[in-house]
Amino acid sequence: MHSFSQGLRRLFKFFRNRGLAPGKTPQGNRLSQLLASSLICTVAISAFADEGMWLFEDLPLEHLKQKYEFQPTAAWKEHVMLSSVRFNSGGSASFVSSRGLVLTNHHVAADTLQKLSTPKNNYLEDGFLASSHAEELKSPDLELNQLVSISDVTDRVNKAVSASHSSDEAYRARRAVMAQIEKEALDESGLRSDVVTLFGGAKYHLYRYKKYTDVRLVWAPESRAAFFGGDADNFEYPRYNLDVALFRVYENGIPVPVEHFLKMSECGAQEEELVLVSGNPGRTRRSYTIAALKQLRDRRLPRALDLFRRREVLLQQFGLEGAEQRRRAQKELFSVQNRRKAYTGMLAGLSDPGLIAAKQTAEKSLRAEVQGRELHYAIDAWDKIAGAQARVSLQENRLASLSHLSRYYRLAEKIVLMTGEDEKPSDERLREFRSSARKSLEHDLFSPAPIYDDLEQAKLADALAYFAQLRGGDDPLVTSVLAGLSPVERAARLIQGTRLKEVAQRRQLAAGGSEAVARSSDPMIRLVRLIEPEYRRNRQVAEEAAEVKRQAYGHILTAKVAIEGTSDYPDATFTLRLAFGVVRGYVENRQVIPPWTTLGGAYDHQERHGGKDAWRLPVGWHQHRKDVDLAVPLNFICTVDIVGGNSGSPVINRAGELVGVIFDGNIQSLTADYLYSEKVSRAVAVHSTGIRESLRNIYGAGDLADELGQ
Amino acid sequence: MHSFSQGLRRLFKFFRNRGLAPGKTPQGNRLSQLLASSLICTVAISAFADEGMWLFEDLPLEHLKQKYEFQPTAAWKEHVMLSSVRFNSGGSASFVSSRGLVLTNHHVAADTLQKLSTPKNNYLEDGFLASSHAEELKSPDLELNQLVSISDVTDRVNKAVSASHSSDEAYRARRAVMAQIEKEALDESGLRSDVVTLFGGAKYHLYRYKKYTDVRLVWAPESRAAFFGGDADNFEYPRYNLDVALFRVYENGIPVPVEHFLKMSECGAQEEELVLVSGNPGRTRRSYTIAALKQLRDRRLPRALDLFRRREVLLQQFGLEGAEQRRRAQKELFSVQNRRKAYTGMLAGLSDPGLIAAKQTAEKSLRAEVQGRELHYAIDAWDKIAGAQARVSLQENRLASLSHLSRYYRLAEKIVLMTGEDEKPSDERLREFRSSARKSLEHDLFSPAPIYDDLEQAKLADALAYFAQLRGGDDPLVTSVLAGLSPVERAARLIQGTRLKEVAQRRQLAAGGSEAVARSSDPMIRLVRLIEPEYRRNRQVAEEAAEVKRQAYGHILTAKVAIEGTSDYPDATFTLRLAFGVVRGYVENRQVIPPWTTLGGAYDHQERHGGKDAWRLPVGWHQHRKDVDLAVPLNFICTVDIVGGNSGSPVINRAGELVGVIFDGNIQSLTADYLYSEKVSRAVAVHSTGIRESLRNIYGAGDLADELGQ
Repeated sequence: MHSFSQGLRRLFKFFRNRGLAPGKTPQGNRLSQLLASSLICTVAISAFADEGMWLFEDLPLEHLKQKYEFQPTAAWKEHVMLSSVRFNSGGSASFVSSRGLVLTNHHVAADTLQKLSTPKNNYLEDGFLASSHAEELKSPDLELNQLVSISDVTDRVNKAVSASHSSDEAYRARRAVMAQIEKEALDESGLRSDVVTLFGGAKYHLYRYKKYTDVRLVWAPESRAAFFGGDADNFEYPRYNLDVALFRVYENGIPVPVEHFLKMSECGAQEEELVLVSGNPGRTRRSYTIAALKQLRDRRLPRALDLFRRREVLLQQFGLEGAEQRRRAQKELFSVQNRRKAYTGMLAGLSDPGLIAAKQTAEKSLRAEVQGRELHYAIDAWDKIAGAQARVSLQENRLASLSHLSRYYRLAEKIVLMTGEDEKPSDERLREFRSSARKSLEHDLFSPAPIYDDLEQAKLADALAYFAQLRGGDDPLVTSVLAGLSPVERAARLIQGTRLKEVAQRRQLAAGGSEAVARSSDPMIRLVRLIEPEYRRNRQVAEEAAEVKRQAYGHILTAKVAIEGTSDYPDATFTLRLAFGVVRGYVENRQVIPPWTTLGGAYDHQERHGGKDAWRLPVGWHQHRKDVDLAVPLNFICTVDIVGGNSGSPVINRAGELVGVIFDGNIQSLTADYLYSEKVSRAVAVHSTGIRESLRNIYGAGDLADELGQ
Repeated sequence: MHSFSQGLRRLFKFFRNRGLAPGKTPQGNRLSQLLASSLICTVAISAFADEGMWLFEDLPLEHLKQKYEFQPTAAWKEHVMLSSVRFNSGGSASFVSSRGLVLTNHHVAADTLQKLSTPKNNYLEDGFLASSHAEELKSPDLELNQLVSISDVTDRVNKAVSASHSSDEAYRARRAVMAQIEKEALDESGLRSDVVTLFGGAKYHLYRYKKYTDVRLVWAPESRAAFFGGDADNFEYPRYNLDVALFRVYENGIPVPVEHFLKMSECGAQEEELVLVSGNPGRTRRSYTIAALKQLRDRRLPRALDLFRRREVLLQQFGLEGAEQRRRAQKELFSVQNRRKAYTGMLAGLSDPGLIAAKQTAEKSLRAEVQGRELHYAIDAWDKIAGAQARVSLQENRLASLSHLSRYYRLAEKIVLMTGEDEKPSDERLREFRSSARKSLEHDLFSPAPIYDDLEQAKLADALAYFAQLRGGDDPLVTSVLAGLSPVERAARLIQGTRLKEVAQRRQLAAGGSEAVARSSDPMIRLVRLIEPEYRRNRQVAEEAAEVKRQAYGHILTAKVAIEGTSDYPDATFTLRLAFGVVRGYVENRQVIPPWTTLGGAYDHQERHGGKDAWRLPVGWHQHRKDVDLAVPLNFICTVDIVGGNSGSPVINRAGELVGVIFDGNIQSLTADYLYSEKVSRAVAVHSTGIRESLRNIYGAGDLADELGQ
């Protein structure tokens, strides 16, 4: 077991003692017997599950060897790394054919499905299948990244920052050296080059990515199949979801020939088998101090949830206006409901006084050790983090609501900030505007994806009302933002007046630079300029606070390593990690929850709910019921340590074959943000055999099924 | 026009100038021509609409006479007053037959329909019809009030309060004298006796009510008919809703013979006809100072809305668990959505900077007059109100969430407070525990209405989480309330442990007094006792602040009368008022909105929405489509000044006949809380002829239709 986990082990014990988890792990069940009799695959059985989202170049090799007799070779690692794909829209994926086929979740594809849909063709709801390459649909703005190299640049980054720097100077110096490293790497290789801050600030890695921007939709099932059970079943288990979609990457108009891709395992994931997940977990807060966790509990999560519920109700109301309105709001509603449920689970965990108390004990004991061993550099690290946090929370970002809620606002904000930043050298700009990241930024900024003015009107009016609510109606900035109008009227005028819907207009403003922006009479641009000064002031405070935290978390980690003598995995950063565990059921309310479900189970689940609402399978599933092998697994669960961002990650066996695709966690896993537990917390995946079976016998896409893994 | 309205007239003008209202009033339309040709009724046409929720003993007689040539006699007023009924569950109604039949809204009846329903019989959704008196269903806890006498007790109340009193002494003295007056009135007459504070504190009236507690359900349509169009159509117009229900009041096991009841008009409401509404508007804030309105805008409404959205999402989630769960949550979900929509409209109005500016101008000019005329008693009234408000908002009631969300908590709170208060003389108790109000309190406290533990669990867990959110997880009261458990676990233990579901247990605790409560190990009682000290401290601050405001608003009103020389109507207090106006359409987005809709329109409206979701009429409506006279009016609108609490109010013609039943306002009327406008704001009512026609030809209840007005 690894050092960082020792504090957490106490927590698991705490959970166990409080009866939240069973003392005994389930050892098989009827379903597994059923499957064992119908399939001929066997696997080695291991006894322990494991925590950690590991860096590819720093895997817990000893642990894997001892517990699983698994020793990944350099070639295995390279193969898996190069087969892994990141979606810039916020998910993971993998290459699954030599002809550039990419497998991810339906819900990761949803953003693109929504953007490709029209009032006539609702691909998000009704699904899509290209019967030839020519029919594959090009996404307006997807960018896929394939990580091709990793190098440690910690020394160079840290050398640029001196102990005598003020936090402002330190943040500027660090920003500058990171931008320089990225610029040099880009110039040298032509690859997307990102310096990533790890361990909160103790390490810096340079990641280089091959970028794919011609990404075409090949197949997506209906949302009734992918999101079967809807919001009610989300984060629940057992599940019966075909939450997958296929894209193909192109270059120069032809499918990209891919050297590294995942072959399909013949049998898919087996009970108690070691499985590995290669993906991009978005963010965890496992190293957070108690003060930071409490801020999360008392301020940040409740406020985020208020905003989610506000958006959820707003989008539901908008959808009541008609079928086309429902279609327009659909994807965003799904995603807001998903986050509302996830955050509710996160907050529920943090609201357990026992959990905080246990974390507090671990922190106290580490601080005592730091004090005892006189590790002076780390002694005040916790206080520094609390102080930095207080400075940021004093000026809480009361501007965020506008960009959260309105696409027009986000576009205008990008243009205004970018043209302003472009007047400085790249290494003095706000990080997102550095020259090495410009191509990806423009890919998004100049996306021709549709913008619906009626939906924008509803959202912008609500954003303005929320803005006024957060600051009070007499706040001077509110007064100038509303310009004497009600939020509804002001939103109407802004939307009637803006020309940002036209991509050409965005390009023109961006090309014209800050002068063109200053001259622009576009009301949305003028609105952003009104707010820009406060935005920049807030950003400065936040950046300085982040620098203080980076240094302090770095010191805490150094002290931990000094005290505990081992290495560990860093908190998630939406970069490539390898996690592992076993396929295993669990016990809940004295019920054995099986490690997988079957295609036949989906039909049963539908019947249990009377085929109503979200529990109505698509027509095709009914038509082809007789053609389907109902015993084929559809979903399965494993103890692998995952979190949001891992959606679409390939689940791989030790042979490097694909056995499944991660799409969810059960409700008990929602504390994964700050706490991993292997007792009842599970990652949920689509079983590889279920994908093949449904492609072949429900969707009539035998060719695609054949191409998978070829 | 009346004095109070003069400031408001500027506001209307302001609205008009900003294009929110049309310059021209619509003068008829196709529907009205249709109706005119099919019916033979004619009415006198008047030119103006009117503001005000008037006291029965202080009607604007001159105005009614000049504008409408209407002079209500003492007999007319008495007849209307005695025909009017108040529902303690929060609505209005009227007697409509000599055999105790009471007509109200389906949504006013909903609380009772929900309580009478079981997993087998969902009367709320499926409707109910008693085919004989024996089948009429007794409500578990409805109390109906019939106002029988009004007397002015202002002098006696004010004499008890001296200028030298501190705010605490003044509040106690006022409370004591009000309790004494009520006690004497009760002892003398046996009638429910309430002293009501009017004009914010300038006047006090003693209202005596005949109470009916044996109230039986006679008929309710399906919720699909009553709430046709659902949340989407709510507060919209045109509407097509049969939002009515019939009860019958009993005494000694037989229907009460009623002397005063409303006869049904033959033709119902006619375009441009004067109509009067007798009902109990719940609360308005038209006399609020600017400071009070801003507090409403910046704090109270946003916070209430956050809580509504929270409850809405929670109840929706709960309903996703199954059909029975949906049934259990249904009524509360409707009511939360209704309030969320209403409050959103209220806040939208207040968020219009122009509206506040216009109100500010009016306030400034009044203050200048007060200063100029040296009306010393009123000079600092505005500052006193702002000060009192600031004191309350400093200690914002962070306890309310628990009682808002959990029925068990509310029951326990009542028992704990009541037994504590009972140790004091009646006139020193908190108002709601005075002896004269005890019967009504017990009727509610000992109600056998079902409590669903699964729903309580969801709500109480959320209430505890919200409680922690409002105060922060480290707050000492949060720590002791959660007792080391997560909100979910704590709620589970509370609900498993409490015996308050049993009415006998509640009676026993109440009878045992504070000693029994102190000894009780019931966890819900203990929870309330933990919170009681802070509750009482908050309450004291709130009561003192309310006293300061009562005096200050009283002084402002006195000054207004002195300056403007006329009387006015007081803000609404959920007591009987008479309002009036005309049946009239309006123009919206250049479209003429007709003054009424027809039964046939309901079928058309269904078809326009593809018969989906909330736009599917009940089966019975389809079966009897051929039997129905489709030209008969179903809903109509009028310019009458109403607000929440008026739901179910009879709409009456000058002959004192029933022409309709109020059930809603259009979206433009949602500012009625603080602003009346006659241009596009409309009250929406069910047309009396639509009620008769549907009873007869859809519901097969010809006997009931015949009994109406007999």
